[in-house]
Amino acid sequence: MHKNDQLFIIKIGGNIIDNPAALDAFLADFSKIEAAKILIHGGGKIATKIGAQLGIESNYVDGRRITDDATIDLVTMVYGGLANKKIVAQLQALGTNAIGLTGADANIIPAKKRSVKTIDYGWVGDVDTTTIQHATLHLFLEKGITPVFAPLTHDGMGHILNTNADTIAASLAVALSAHFQVRLIYCFEKKGVLEDVNNDASVIRKLDRNTYQQLKEEKKLFEGILPKIDNAFAAIDAGVSQVLIGDARDLIKNTTNDNEGTLIY
Amino acid sequence: MHKNDQLFIIKIGGNIIDNPAALDAFLADFSKIEAAKILIHGGGKIATKIGAQLGIESNYVDGRRITDDATIDLVTMVYGGLANKKIVAQLQALGTNAIGLTGADANIIPAKKRSVKTIDYGWVGDVDTTTIQHATLHLFLEKGITPVFAPLTHDGMGHILNTNADTIAASLAVALSAHFQVRLIYCFEKKGVLEDVNNDASVIRKLDRNTYQQLKEEKKLFEGILPKIDNAFAAIDAGVSQVLIGDARDLIKNTTNDNEGTLIY
Repeated sequence: MHKNDQLFIIKIGGNIIDNPAALDAFLADFSKIEAAKILIHGGGKIATKIGAQLGIESNYVDGRRITDDATIDLVTMVYGGLANKKIVAQLQALGTNAIGLTGADANIIPAKKRSVKTIDYGWVGDVDTTTIQHATLHLFLEKGITPVFAPLTHDGMGHILNTNADTIAASLAVALSAHFQVRLIYCFEKKGVLEDVNNDASVIRKLDRNTYQQLKEEKKLFEGILPKIDNAFAAIDAGVSQVLIGDARDLIKNTTNDNEGTLIY
Repeated sequence: MHKNDQLFIIKIGGNIIDNPAALDAFLADFSKIEAAKILIHGGGKIATKIGAQLGIESNYVDGRRITDDATIDLVTMVYGGLANKKIVAQLQALGTNAIGLTGADANIIPAKKRSVKTIDYGWVGDVDTTTIQHATLHLFLEKGITPVFAPLTHDGMGHILNTNADTIAASLAVALSAHFQVRLIYCFEKKGVLEDVNNDASVIRKLDRNTYQQLKEEKKLFEGILPKIDNAFAAIDAGVSQVLIGDARDLIKNTTNDNEGTLIY
């Protein structure tokens, strides 16, 4: 692999995972990407639904979900098993040689259990990008194997940890940036970052730091998008070439320079 | 890798998976094996328990379990997610660089959905050992990565298939026999094959085909063990060096020539 090789790291969330037709369409497009690629999927609502059937309650403190013993088993089953392996089987049928992984597998994403300050989040992991085993990911990509990650890591002491899928995607992008030209693509429910939240056609096509600062000062951006954009710039500061926020339905265009969505650079 | 390199392929079933203390002890021993190794685990009773909580009934026809749509999702979650990833995280903590896999991952074990003759078994897969992607397994083993398989394969058309763990272990052993000296170890609830079913001390240490024939004629062997022994001889006919049936607690000794258990050759 050469530093100039293109790598797409693509994250999908609940709006795709929970919708079989949207997932089928996304995977068909994903399988058409010829460059090296890695998929990270979030959980979706199925874990909550199965958890309710199993009598596992969702616990929240200050709006943040707590991952207790029952919940980590639940998400290990549902994200690491059901969602992950179904995606892998579908990708195999589409001709993409996918391998389903958590961060525990081949120790690719070691993490630390989040320390308890005011809130004990339970079995939640924070990733240190410098410890990611990028050589193993290289090996897979070189052999034409496409990693598909569930949003799970491990603590190296025998415990699976729940980890935000956006964070895993950004961490992998940073860890692989020394060796690839990485475009990190966040699939989003909108076409991209909107200049006017009420107008879906107002997608900001290119966003650099100056424009972002200006839009923030003008209070034009939807609050909820700010952490995503901040994370995007953090990834770029750490070496990622480009971050793109866009609609999953625009995936193919979003892997070209003629992209839809918002390109952050 | 050279043909003379030793490879241990070890299968554990429900009696280990369902017993945390037995599993901990087994994994501690497994992690001490220095040669190349692959683990295959069965499902255990946890799938039935979780299935009951989810209202998924176990369907049997003529004593054989039927894998309907709800059941394949259940075993994909429980075997491919919960059981598999917990084992991987534990092995990582023990210093074994495990990777959790189903046969769908990296297309390592393609299978065919069992055709309907008198019974429709549902999403059950039969393995053709000639299609196993042994080069990918080589790659992992060369890099010191230890594959851990859940008893699941796929049909190449997007479906996960339920597959007997004994069969997966034997199939992997056969597929890798061209490249390794394979000892296939079935962990069993007894110390080995008993000459007298009522005497746990009557383990047959070495069993060749002549002795087996003689014991069968004398009707000394427990009925339930016959298919396991027949499978063992089938594996040997297909190139596997040795098959050993023994107690999981004797694992370390059973990876030496000073083995407990029954060595079939």
